[in-house]
Amino acid sequence: MNFIDQLARAERLHDSLLCVGLDPEPGKFPGAWKGDAGKIFDFCAAIVDATKDLVIAFKPQIAYFAAHRAEDQLERLMAYIKRTAPDVPVILDAKRGDIGSTAEQYAREAFERYQADAVTLSPFMGFDSIEPYLRYADKGVILLCRTSNPGGNDWQMQRLADVPGQPRLFEHLAHRAQTEWNRNGQLALVVGATYPAEIARVRELAPTLPLLIPGVGAQGGDAQATVQAGLVCDASGASTGPIIVNSSRAVLYASAGDDFAQAARRVALATRDALNAASAAARR
Amino acid sequence: MNFIDQLARAERLHDSLLCVGLDPEPGKFPGAWKGDAGKIFDFCAAIVDATKDLVIAFKPQIAYFAAHRAEDQLERLMAYIKRTAPDVPVILDAKRGDIGSTAEQYAREAFERYQADAVTLSPFMGFDSIEPYLRYADKGVILLCRTSNPGGNDWQMQRLADVPGQPRLFEHLAHRAQTEWNRNGQLALVVGATYPAEIARVRELAPTLPLLIPGVGAQGGDAQATVQAGLVCDASGASTGPIIVNSSRAVLYASAGDDFAQAARRVALATRDALNAASAAARR
Repeated sequence: MNFIDQLARAERLHDSLLCVGLDPEPGKFPGAWKGDAGKIFDFCAAIVDATKDLVIAFKPQIAYFAAHRAEDQLERLMAYIKRTAPDVPVILDAKRGDIGSTAEQYAREAFERYQADAVTLSPFMGFDSIEPYLRYADKGVILLCRTSNPGGNDWQMQRLADVPGQPRLFEHLAHRAQTEWNRNGQLALVVGATYPAEIARVRELAPTLPLLIPGVGAQGGDAQATVQAGLVCDASGASTGPIIVNSSRAVLYASAGDDFAQAARRVALATRDALNAASAAARR
Repeated sequence: MNFIDQLARAERLHDSLLCVGLDPEPGKFPGAWKGDAGKIFDFCAAIVDATKDLVIAFKPQIAYFAAHRAEDQLERLMAYIKRTAPDVPVILDAKRGDIGSTAEQYAREAFERYQADAVTLSPFMGFDSIEPYLRYADKGVILLCRTSNPGGNDWQMQRLADVPGQPRLFEHLAHRAQTEWNRNGQLALVVGATYPAEIARVRELAPTLPLLIPGVGAQGGDAQATVQAGLVCDASGASTGPIIVNSSRAVLYASAGDDFAQAARRVALATRDALNAASAAARR
């Protein structure tokens, strides 16, 4: 099953737009695990167990594993999710960006070594930095498009003088991702949650691409604007322009006590429900 | 000693502008090692032994290690270079690009886990994707600027409508890297070798930054144009605008036989000498 179909299935089965990001920081682990990088797998597996029926996807961030020499634990975690939550697609957040045989090596790392269903990429080097990943026809490829950090303005917001209509860089990127770059129909885009008007603009230019949206907090405070701007559904309520709303720390570190997994579940449930309430409101 | 000083010392000691890129591909290993990912360290160490007195830097490309679950061999290799070639700075080619605590994890991976002297980064997310690396005040940070692949035109060549003079994106990036972004004086830029006029343009906008230039072949065919466009020296012949010219496969796979290390040395020597001849011609 390809990534887009996996997403649609998980959205339906779990009635969820929520992605739980797995960014393990041993310094924030509960109780006796605090500071122990050897517990990265155990911590993440407990979060997976506690939330796997509530999510549209999991998103491990590889930097948190690499900094702690924990690639073996990431391998175990990916295998664990495949085994215990086979309905949940896994996005490896790696933001790789290279070309040619180097890109082939990174694709092999993401899709063969770690068995990810999708990977995030940085498009700075252009289409031929994306193309090697597209050779894995069923895999999702999620491009940075418009990020909400201050430096997101440095390049992504620049208007392109020589492109008709002088779109901003992120607008031109969204258009190309929806059209000529989307060879397998498995492309998606990263769009930050801070500026709903920009989510809406990306959605306008890329009507069917899944949007991976980081930055919605535990309280779901900005959930409504995010969902309204990004989600498109057909008459039956099925999404034709899906969104994947990521929450990491608010879920992972909801409690520093032995109840961390239950607390993570409570926050994930509340966030999922806030997103669904926003979604119901948006459909009315 | 900071990265810029390490570079200057290696350039002087080894009379070299050549960087040997360590992109190990087990399928290209010689003789009995062919196809054996367990020999990645041994292969790279043999290349280091054979070329360490001929280079300004080594540049391991992390993707080639990650694809083969060989992070442990990369750790050993980095330690080996530090021990046996302490005069040669090591650039970890990773092209990371993320923000906040994720960027901190990647910086920790590059500078603490692997003990790299410099790392390559992708600047798509803007200055705050660079800043966490600058907290390591002596370390080099090498930004993608203008790459020679076809997709390098997709964004890097775009003229920016709202910046005075409508520079191309790579021009504006070179300017910012030379000025406001260069807080520790340890920034450098990646500029492809294919278009010497663009190297010259980057050099004009970033007169003192080291330029890491991939794409010069074994024959040194384009060495002269590259050196002429990129290298700036003072009256004594010391470089004030250094270049680091990378060659990977032409050196690593100069022979598929048991003489691979000697063959690598021959090619490295010929490439170094071609670069030096071009440098002498450029100074006349």
